[in-house]
Amino acid sequence: MSVHLEFLKKNEQYVADFDKGHLPLPPAKKYTVVTCMDARVEPARQLGIELGDAHVIRNAGGSAKDALRSVVISQRLLGTREIAVFHHTDCGMLTFLTNDLRSLVKAAEPGNAAVAEAVDKIEFLEFADVEESVKADVKFLQENPLVLKGTTVTGWTYDVTTGKAKRVI
Amino acid sequence: MSVHLEFLKKNEQYVADFDKGHLPLPPAKKYTVVTCMDARVEPARQLGIELGDAHVIRNAGGSAKDALRSVVISQRLLGTREIAVFHHTDCGMLTFLTNDLRSLVKAAEPGNAAVAEAVDKIEFLEFADVEESVKADVKFLQENPLVLKGTTVTGWTYDVTTGKAKRVI
Repeated sequence: MSVHLEFLKKNEQYVADFDKGHLPLPPAKKYTVVTCMDARVEPARQLGIELGDAHVIRNAGGSAKDALRSVVISQRLLGTREIAVFHHTDCGMLTFLTNDLRSLVKAAEPGNAAVAEAVDKIEFLEFADVEESVKADVKFLQENPLVLKGTTVTGWTYDVTTGKAKRVI
Repeated sequence: MSVHLEFLKKNEQYVADFDKGHLPLPPAKKYTVVTCMDARVEPARQLGIELGDAHVIRNAGGSAKDALRSVVISQRLLGTREIAVFHHTDCGMLTFLTNDLRSLVKAAEPGNAAVAEAVDKIEFLEFADVEESVKADVKFLQENPLVLKGTTVTGWTYDVTTGKAKRVI
């Protein structure tokens, strides 16, 4: 079954049981989770985030740097005051370097100047160690002038083989 | 209860029932969802995404532009071949303009040059119409030289008051 047909079928079941149409826009528990897009990561179930509680930002690696635009909107317009950064074991970001990925993309379309120019503009934000990258992202947020002073920033890892969350910092 | 204590307690329950430690890194169903960080959005339950199936990228608004780094990693290194963009009703991105948010951030710390310089660098990617923004993001992905040719890109809205997903394009 193609993905879009699957969405409609699954969503029908969700709609039939839905009773949360009254929830307001600002997150009830005033926190934001920054985590990875990885298919084995599911913040709501893994961390017990109820619908309406928190903003969840996800990107390749769970990069805080990549999440900055969203964090500013979350804090300034929607009142969140705590940020939890989660990276996870066996992350794809541990498996490559920006230069390798740029080469791979260029090699797929040799001589295409638009592709080369576009990919050379992207820093892919890979990392070599999960706990160190969590610490670096927490530091990035704590020191960034756009993040509100007094924000509680915590750092965590998630283990995809055990399902376990661990506080790092 | 502070958020980090809540995570540990909820995660303990998750770990006790966890039996998905064998899932591989590449998404089983080879698709990526791009959607909003909104607290009322929960892609796994709302769209029936099983653990291990798909990449889920989330940011303020569900911006495809903001997601490009992650999409390239998802396609080139982890084999995804379909992208579904979801924006939703009552989105925070409908409520402000980049210039207003920049002014608000500067006004919170008058005379702080580091803050002014940092916030002026950010395009906040707000939009005025949910369906139009979905169509624009689908077009952005279809025309972007870094997105693989032949990728199926679909566009959707999610209604936070009814729980209903609707195909736009």
